[in-house]
Amino acid sequence: MTQKTIKVGIVGGTGYTGVELLRLLAQHPHCELRAITSRKEAGMPVAEMFPNLRGRVSLRFSEPAASGLDQCDVVFFATPNGVAMQEARALVDAGVKVIDLAADFRIRDVAVWEQYYKMKHACPELVAEAVYALPEINRAEIKKARVIANPGCYPTAVQLGFLPLIEAGCVDAGHLIADAKSGVSGAGRKAETHILHAEAADNFKAYGVGNHRHQPEIAQGLARVAGHPVGLVFVPHLTPMIRGIHATLYARLTKSTTAADLQTLYEKRYAGEAFVDVMPAGSHPETRSVRGANQCRIAVHLPQGGDTVVVLSVIDNLVKGAAGQAVQNMNILFGLAEDTGLTQVALLP
Amino acid sequence: MTQKTIKVGIVGGTGYTGVELLRLLAQHPHCELRAITSRKEAGMPVAEMFPNLRGRVSLRFSEPAASGLDQCDVVFFATPNGVAMQEARALVDAGVKVIDLAADFRIRDVAVWEQYYKMKHACPELVAEAVYALPEINRAEIKKARVIANPGCYPTAVQLGFLPLIEAGCVDAGHLIADAKSGVSGAGRKAETHILHAEAADNFKAYGVGNHRHQPEIAQGLARVAGHPVGLVFVPHLTPMIRGIHATLYARLTKSTTAADLQTLYEKRYAGEAFVDVMPAGSHPETRSVRGANQCRIAVHLPQGGDTVVVLSVIDNLVKGAAGQAVQNMNILFGLAEDTGLTQVALLP
Amino acid sequence: MTQKTIKVGIVGGTGYTGVELLRLLAQHPHCELRAITSRKEAGMPVAEMFPNLRGRVSLRFSEPAASGLDQCDVVFFATPNGVAMQEARALVDAGVKVIDLAADFRIRDVAVWEQYYKMKHACPELVAEAVYALPEINRAEIKKARVIANPGCYPTAVQLGFLPLIEAGCVDAGHLIADAKSGVSGAGRKAETHILHAEAADNFKAYGVGNHRHQPEIAQGLARVAGHPVGLVFVPHLTPMIRGIHATLYARLTKSTTAADLQTLYEKRYAGEAFVDVMPAGSHPETRSVRGANQCRIAVHLPQGGDTVVVLSVIDNLVKGAAGQAVQNMNILFGLAEDTGLTQVALLP
Amino acid sequence: MTQKTIKVGIVGGTGYTGVELLRLLAQHPHCELRAITSRKEAGMPVAEMFPNLRGRVSLRFSEPAASGLDQCDVVFFATPNGVAMQEARALVDAGVKVIDLAADFRIRDVAVWEQYYKMKHACPELVAEAVYALPEINRAEIKKARVIANPGCYPTAVQLGFLPLIEAGCVDAGHLIADAKSGVSGAGRKAETHILHAEAADNFKAYGVGNHRHQPEIAQGLARVAGHPVGLVFVPHLTPMIRGIHATLYARLTKSTTAADLQTLYEKRYAGEAFVDVMPAGSHPETRSVRGANQCRIAVHLPQGGDTVVVLSVIDNLVKGAAGQAVQNMNILFGLAEDTGLTQVALLP
Repeated sequence: MTQKTIKVGIVGGTGYTGVELLRLLAQHPHCELRAITSRKEAGMPVAEMFPNLRGRVSLRFSEPAASGLDQCDVVFFATPNGVAMQEARALVDAGVKVIDLAADFRIRDVAVWEQYYKMKHACPELVAEAVYALPEINRAEIKKARVIANPGCYPTAVQLGFLPLIEAGCVDAGHLIADAKSGVSGAGRKAETHILHAEAADNFKAYGVGNHRHQPEIAQGLARVAGHPVGLVFVPHLTPMIRGIHATLYARLTKSTTAADLQTLYEKRYAGEAFVDVMPAGSHPETRSVRGANQCRIAVHLPQGGDTVVVLSVIDNLVKGAAGQAVQNMNILFGLAEDTGLTQVALLP
Repeated sequence: MTQKTIKVGIVGGTGYTGVELLRLLAQHPHCELRAITSRKEAGMPVAEMFPNLRGRVSLRFSEPAASGLDQCDVVFFATPNGVAMQEARALVDAGVKVIDLAADFRIRDVAVWEQYYKMKHACPELVAEAVYALPEINRAEIKKARVIANPGCYPTAVQLGFLPLIEAGCVDAGHLIADAKSGVSGAGRKAETHILHAEAADNFKAYGVGNHRHQPEIAQGLARVAGHPVGLVFVPHLTPMIRGIHATLYARLTKSTTAADLQTLYEKRYAGEAFVDVMPAGSHPETRSVRGANQCRIAVHLPQGGDTVVVLSVIDNLVKGAAGQAVQNMNILFGLAEDTGLTQVALLP
Repeated sequence: MTQKTIKVGIVGGTGYTGVELLRLLAQHPHCELRAITSRKEAGMPVAEMFPNLRGRVSLRFSEPAASGLDQCDVVFFATPNGVAMQEARALVDAGVKVIDLAADFRIRDVAVWEQYYKMKHACPELVAEAVYALPEINRAEIKKARVIANPGCYPTAVQLGFLPLIEAGCVDAGHLIADAKSGVSGAGRKAETHILHAEAADNFKAYGVGNHRHQPEIAQGLARVAGHPVGLVFVPHLTPMIRGIHATLYARLTKSTTAADLQTLYEKRYAGEAFVDVMPAGSHPETRSVRGANQCRIAVHLPQGGDTVVVLSVIDNLVKGAAGQAVQNMNILFGLAEDTGLTQVALLP
Repeated sequence: MTQKTIKVGIVGGTGYTGVELLRLLAQHPHCELRAITSRKEAGMPVAEMFPNLRGRVSLRFSEPAASGLDQCDVVFFATPNGVAMQEARALVDAGVKVIDLAADFRIRDVAVWEQYYKMKHACPELVAEAVYALPEINRAEIKKARVIANPGCYPTAVQLGFLPLIEAGCVDAGHLIADAKSGVSGAGRKAETHILHAEAADNFKAYGVGNHRHQPEIAQGLARVAGHPVGLVFVPHLTPMIRGIHATLYARLTKSTTAADLQTLYEKRYAGEAFVDVMPAGSHPETRSVRGANQCRIAVHLPQGGDTVVVLSVIDNLVKGAAGQAVQNMNILFGLAEDTGLTQVALLP
């Protein structure tokens, strides 16, 4: 079977999800990168900003208006929150698939979205239509979507970690705890003081306790699976590494369950998933084991014979937590093998 | 008042707690360093191994037997577990105060100790006598001790964090969760592969879920305060920094309590403590804010109006979590102002 | 002798040299901090921005105009380049000593300064009067100065490293090479993309080859010692650490000289200097051996019996390369022992 | 054309060059990994030691004797120095191509080798036959080799950087200076104290000034190109990152040459080379721009119109400096396109 080439556009490629998309698409056998837009950097060769792409990506950043995005098969938004909602309508109407790596289409309750993101939503009707695209949950819906809401980084690691427990209904879903740690690239490529090397290196801190934007996103996703609202305490931390998320999850068992039961539950749930790896009992997944790879690795523990399950879930926030998952969703949308262009092995050490 | 000089010996000064003790004692106005022993390095100037001490510490490592430790006023053990228990008896009999920075005298139940530390205890009768010395809990006992069990690093951060809640009896002490993150120096100055820079940098992982040695130490300490056994899930993590512990603590309220009540509870509890700093409501303490300083900083949160208290507690594992606390205990033992020689300001950035 | 307290003001204390000055002055026995100004942050407690100072510095940032700087004995400028030259005149006229940690008074040739710093100099007549204050070279002049130009970080490490060779006249001063590596705090606490953790960690690069502002400063300093112009190739690099400069210096011998001769030359030159430590032959000084300390450590090598001298010189860029040297200069100015308040031991590990 | 599959064996796969070979070979379309040996770890699945390989490499470490290495087409030695020289003879006699990533066959003068490597050479006659395989210099010889001496990491970066100058004969080859900085993985995966995270992070130091083993290797390589012996001062440094080498090279011009001439010289020399990228004039290559990629990036400068050329050359020490170059050499040996399996894009950030 000959494979038709997918014409791809990227809006806003100057951030970390943008360069990561470019790294992956440059190695994808069935994509043709048509345009990458940046108002601010229009005219600059992409490889001048990101020298890892020298010799691999010859495009220049272009003005959005002159970029022919409506001629693409799919457009990725690797933009700050609030951009995709302005531009998705026209693209959808032109028959272009939209994959938003930001948060514009993730929260179904527009009022909640507006409260957390502190702006008016420009396109509520597409929120209703958009598919929240965690393939391990709703692959079938993704296939038919016109607008893809690519999940956030923390939400990917946390939902994949809790999912088997919630589906099995064996824990108190009213008191879930997610203690999550992220590398600094999760904060984006923004000139802000607190993420300077001299501030963030050799330092560890929590942030946003009680008000992080990913709390409602995770809660919404788990509630959908549970069939009822869930209670979630979500505490994110900044850890001095570049890439990687480690979510440590705590849930109280409500049914008699052994460590072996839990191991079996997880292994069965993810048996067919190429990008979720349930490690052997007793394992401690490391973030570097997924560095640069579209992979989630999970281990499940039941310490000291108690009733508190501890789940350890790691991803690369820029890959399975952003650009890699976006390519995975694109592959699903266009009927490709789901791992096309996503077979990179993690860089260790 | 003229201050008598304290004659100090250190057993085993080639590790990180050893060099940190030397750094602090070199700046202590009332100490005279008499001997620092190392069988392996006997004869080598201390400052050759630790060049930060050049010009400040002129001693050489010496053979234990020839070191005149029994002529000291106090001897610190900065040794691996299992050494102090062999040598403490003779020193105590010679009238020398013993401060053990390792774990030999921390666990009162010798059977539990032997199970976790995988060796036979050489000196159970001194375990019975020794004082577990967290000054913020039992300053009065420390004053009269002959053998000081200096608390572990994680146990210091976790106990100081939970203490006000346990004393107030306002949480479910059967289901405490301590999600703790440590810099790599916590693993000691041992030639082991997993703590190499190329392994531990830019990486994050949990370890020892369900079987870490600090679990029974913390549980014992909190139980003593509670007056009954506690349930504790303790999950330690390795984070790519040199110094610092961040403990994120979770407890379920059993009485109606507001965030403001909790803030007041913590501020009152630690009002008189020089080395515990309760930060303003809404704060997120950073490990670097205590780097090199004998300080614990704590913030208390009650996210989303729920019933799960979140406590953030940071220390420098080598200072308040080891050598600094040991000097604090020495100051108490010898009737000095508790902050003598401990007024270093944390190094930031 | 009772010591009069020095009244100190700081202009612009929100950067790294500012917080480092505060750390050192908080431990200085003869200083009283009167004011620290910041237009932007006026009203904010200093310890809110820099939590390591909680409990140690109770001042708030204040408006420059309302800060009574003219009532101080000495005012430090921890400001961007171009500020001190606007305000020094009035302070000097009010009898206040001025210590500028920025570059306004470092280059005697105002035309060169204007070329490299890309602005018009506001106060050339104070440039003529100001003392370029590297105490190991010109302690006597510093004593009598009204305006102190505190040397730059690279220039301190490089000049101290080359000094004995230039004074001895034993190398080709027309072809000096300084290959220097700096931690990221050397770039200041500015919100700029290239010094983000995710950009600067796990990365190494040269920058400013051929046009760095410290080139003329170093060349001027060495020329003064040599008595004639020198030729200097200066290549700075950014290395993924917070603090520290390592200068690797290369010079070609013009006279028959052995490694032992060189070792003697260096040891004699710095025999009386508290803050320059010549290490034993064969040593490789580490930046961490001076982390947080006002110290320069130097080793001199003559590889493979050749004619190229290699000098290794390390400092903490924020201490001996900035705030510590400024305090050292203040001590000289006010007749204190030169190491007053500067006896911190470096933090290792 | 159908491509025959190459049967590959690896001796000693538990170090960093071993795991990196596995990462690359797992993505190589024409290789079949037959065996990977480790006496110490025989029986353990490779992916248990290196979890990034889970799902990608199913082999277990095996006993060398039972591994059928003589049935392979090529055997890579990713062993400590001194192993390949014991085993190469038998493999060569069995018709197996040998690629040694260690140093056993790099130095033609066996006496020099024995002096620097402090052991007796077991197989001098294969040294005489072996090809020192830097493809950009001697591709034709590699094609016909039976024993490949894969160059060292520093030697790759330094030789590629100096090569055009030496070939052009425009610099004083008697006084070359190579100031090189390496990430910590360059020291290998050995349990040694000085490369612990707590020792090597946030620290910078030179080491081995005057006696590093790569000095004679580089000098030999440049001498061969020059046609006469060269003088080289080589100063390696340890920098707190995982991967990457940055070589800063200094040479004095002996002929009138402009910066533009130099730029042209470099661009022409490497015009046909897929794995050497000459950056635009004025550039500063970053190590992260080649992280994980088989690539060398070079910039050439002539600061301040002087006569000292400064060359900046970066590689990933584990890829172009070891495993990637080894695969490149294998591709040449077996007549594959040179970039087969080597098209990974560098991971940035």
